[in-house]
Amino acid sequence: MNVRLDIEYDGSEFHGWQRQLSGPTIQALIEDILSDVLNRKIFVYGASRTDSGVHARGQVANFHDESGRLSPTQWRSILNYRLPRTIRILDSGEAPATFHAQKNALAKCYEYRVLNRSYASALDRRVYFHPRPIDWNRVRRALPYFIGKKDFQSFQGAKSTVLTTVRSVHRFDLEEEYPGLYCFKVEGSGFLKQMVRTMVGTVLEAGEGKRDPDSIPEVLAALNRRSAGRTVPASGLCLMRVYYENASSAATA
Amino acid sequence: MNVRLDIEYDGSEFHGWQRQLSGPTIQALIEDILSDVLNRKIFVYGASRTDSGVHARGQVANFHDESGRLSPTQWRSILNYRLPRTIRILDSGEAPATFHAQKNALAKCYEYRVLNRSYASALDRRVYFHPRPIDWNRVRRALPYFIGKKDFQSFQGAKSTVLTTVRSVHRFDLEEEYPGLYCFKVEGSGFLKQMVRTMVGTVLEAGEGKRDPDSIPEVLAALNRRSAGRTVPASGLCLMRVYYENASSAATA
Repeated sequence: MNVRLDIEYDGSEFHGWQRQLSGPTIQALIEDILSDVLNRKIFVYGASRTDSGVHARGQVANFHDESGRLSPTQWRSILNYRLPRTIRILDSGEAPATFHAQKNALAKCYEYRVLNRSYASALDRRVYFHPRPIDWNRVRRALPYFIGKKDFQSFQGAKSTVLTTVRSVHRFDLEEEYPGLYCFKVEGSGFLKQMVRTMVGTVLEAGEGKRDPDSIPEVLAALNRRSAGRTVPASGLCLMRVYYENASSAATA
Repeated sequence: MNVRLDIEYDGSEFHGWQRQLSGPTIQALIEDILSDVLNRKIFVYGASRTDSGVHARGQVANFHDESGRLSPTQWRSILNYRLPRTIRILDSGEAPATFHAQKNALAKCYEYRVLNRSYASALDRRVYFHPRPIDWNRVRRALPYFIGKKDFQSFQGAKSTVLTTVRSVHRFDLEEEYPGLYCFKVEGSGFLKQMVRTMVGTVLEAGEGKRDPDSIPEVLAALNRRSAGRTVPASGLCLMRVYYENASSAATA
């Protein structure tokens, strides 16, 4: 049986999704429980390889269990019982045999939060705390330049072996959730490594007066990481949702 | 000088606003810093005596400093430097000499969050986690009965010495922030002890099928705590804002 999992996590304490020797990762924690229960090595495929410190409200993963012993609901219970409280399986379901959480993903939605006021928050820790002033109108002016199918090589924050750096960005919006708390909503067909964090870092530099909001087309045309801005911290980033052709959640997979 | 403070806190680790012998409180922590700096006993008046475990994004307080040595901005810096990170002074300003954060409050706004799904959250801890099913349409039907100037004695969750139990409730709404996360927004002229938590507990019982949503007028008419529902946990409650005649924040006090 091909089991789909919908997963939420606070990335603060983890070394990202993908198994690492450096420390605990979400993939490794889940795989180790599954492998222990089934007494054989199980691989879990995640839709997004979220970086160290990045959070998720809607990560999707799948694994194959040929034992026939446990239902998706039982897997969810076992995992939630054994995982740390900062990782929760929200939903589980049987997916078609060919379903692959990463390869079948059509689009992904991320949010990035910036707290722009004098003092850090007593309540909201999963943000990028940025006390220096930002002109948010300048930030907003830079956003539309990212929409469309483009080569995002300039925004590939780290070395990677991807075949193409062309991606489609469908949405790049900004909302003020409460005074000082700004949330970027980014949706696209897929994202290069650190691409969202480098997009946000670049438009923030426009808001800081360090670059022209209208210079984004040139940054894109340069096809060079050095032309873009800094990569902002992982703490502000959250994977919100992964879109597939049919199923919108594991329950309906 | 009469100094106004706008304060945010995560109530999880504190024994409420008001000074207690049982453990650390927000009032005591602030008063102790002010008293230490000024080398005399300073009293801090808070708009709302939030209970143990209750959070705040917009608590307001004031204190009198006759030393003339420090500006409101300097007070804010000193307090934020010495307070735990789970308490932040968001704003400070000079208030009129007669301003009293509690006595001058015209209205207050609270939010109460319920997480109604199978598994607790990896991300949202400041909620009331309620895994059993709730019919939210029944909850919604019960809300309008609370609006208006009424005697809320049935919803006074604990013994108190208030002169009157008549209060005006201006707003009692419900919003679904994301699947399973329900947020009540309550606004009124003032609230009795544990009143918001008992209002929410009572309408949740309507949603659980334990009482008729249309029975709220009878509950109010009974003027008896036993006719209302349970008092839900403090963890879900947050003081959002206190309204005054002129100033909307310490910066404009």
